[in-house]
Amino acid sequence: MTADADLRFDLGDLYAAYAACLDEARFDDWPGFFTEDCRYRAVPRENYDQGLPLATMDLQSRGALKDRVYGVTSTLFHAPYYQRHIIGPIRITARDGDTILVEANYLVIRTKRDVPSEVFNAGRYVDRVVPTPDGLRFAEKLCIFDSELIANSIIYPL
Amino acid sequence: MTADADLRFDLGDLYAAYAACLDEARFDDWPGFFTEDCRYRAVPRENYDQGLPLATMDLQSRGALKDRVYGVTSTLFHAPYYQRHIIGPIRITARDGDTILVEANYLVIRTKRDVPSEVFNAGRYVDRVVPTPDGLRFAEKLCIFDSELIANSIIYPL
Amino acid sequence: MTADADLRFDLGDLYAAYAACLDEARFDDWPGFFTEDCRYRAVPRENYDQGLPLATMDLQSRGALKDRVYGVTSTLFHAPYYQRHIIGPIRITARDGDTILVEANYLVIRTKRDVPSEVFNAGRYVDRVVPTPDGLRFAEKLCIFDSELIANSIIYPL
Repeated sequence: MTADADLRFDLGDLYAAYAACLDEARFDDWPGFFTEDCRYRAVPRENYDQGLPLATMDLQSRGALKDRVYGVTSTLFHAPYYQRHIIGPIRITARDGDTILVEANYLVIRTKRDVPSEVFNAGRYVDRVVPTPDGLRFAEKLCIFDSELIANSIIYPL
Repeated sequence: MTADADLRFDLGDLYAAYAACLDEARFDDWPGFFTEDCRYRAVPRENYDQGLPLATMDLQSRGALKDRVYGVTSTLFHAPYYQRHIIGPIRITARDGDTILVEANYLVIRTKRDVPSEVFNAGRYVDRVVPTPDGLRFAEKLCIFDSELIANSIIYPL
Repeated sequence: MTADADLRFDLGDLYAAYAACLDEARFDDWPGFFTEDCRYRAVPRENYDQGLPLATMDLQSRGALKDRVYGVTSTLFHAPYYQRHIIGPIRITARDGDTILVEANYLVIRTKRDVPSEVFNAGRYVDRVVPTPDGLRFAEKLCIFDSELIANSIIYPL
């Protein structure tokens, strides 16, 4: 089992670096955490639990992620806000060859200018992580968030 | 010290799986995280710090936990809500033979239907964990929460 | 890489113990987490990002930390509150000899008497950690918090 130690630490680093990338608003680096043919989705829990396909964001391929970054940084009109991800213990739920299924609870705190920090989005990641020559990457990242109320104000990736 | 690596990872998995069980509302699985003669308590910090015995929940034995689950799922009238546990770094504070004393800070975010997610309960776990043939289990779990204000609306386990 | 396992676990323990010290209000123990010639700063993110020197707290040397503790526990008039730190995955960002640069996101939940728990402060630690005969210690701890709004009500260390 200790043979897994490196993998465990690498997973911790992956999630910590992912959070840091978003929280420091280095959005151009965000697609680099994914494989070329990745899928990124943000889905309200109610829809997910009922098997409904609606997703607040559904991006397929790294190119689609880059498109989203372009939208976020260049075309979308929105009040800017800071994000702060707090990610709980990371759990390997299954393996399929080299592919690792990983889940973790997350909380995103939002801070708008001149407003106190507030709970913005809470949920869980259900991810498919694969090894690549550049290290671990997300082949699939699914953000299932508990409240559908804030869905239409999600500008930045979770 | 690295001899402990497996134990450390197993503890992380235990807490992550515990949180996932509650957050996915799989309450029937919840007693399975405990030993047969366990004790589960949720106590306001003010009472705990003063050594007062009052507990918001005080369940002794796995049977009592099953009773509580029956109450939660079948008899208690309450507005349903989602829970989301964010657990901080897990710390081994002492050992006594096979028994491990473990502490961790936790935050539970609550999401009611059609309401934004909100801080519900924050505190620390002070737990006694023991190895069993089925893996690590809680022989004792003590949830000491910082605010007594929400005590009477705690329906689900923390 | 597994050679780092002990260091990783020790770092996790350091941050968990640091949080527990503050959250249990054992302020007299707080300076003990730092080296003799340490520096502790709490800085709003906006100032940090612009390279502005203003800091909400800027303490140099362990003696200055002890002074602050004296102020907090003996001379400052303030409504007492509980703190609860939830710290996310800890990341080693660089090394320089024995010195380790470490970053981690944190969230502090505040609970005032008779008030529900609330988000108080969120941000990231940017720390310089060094080994000492007594274990890992902070040579520098920088708390960069996202909201400047609550700055003047920060009484206890973050």
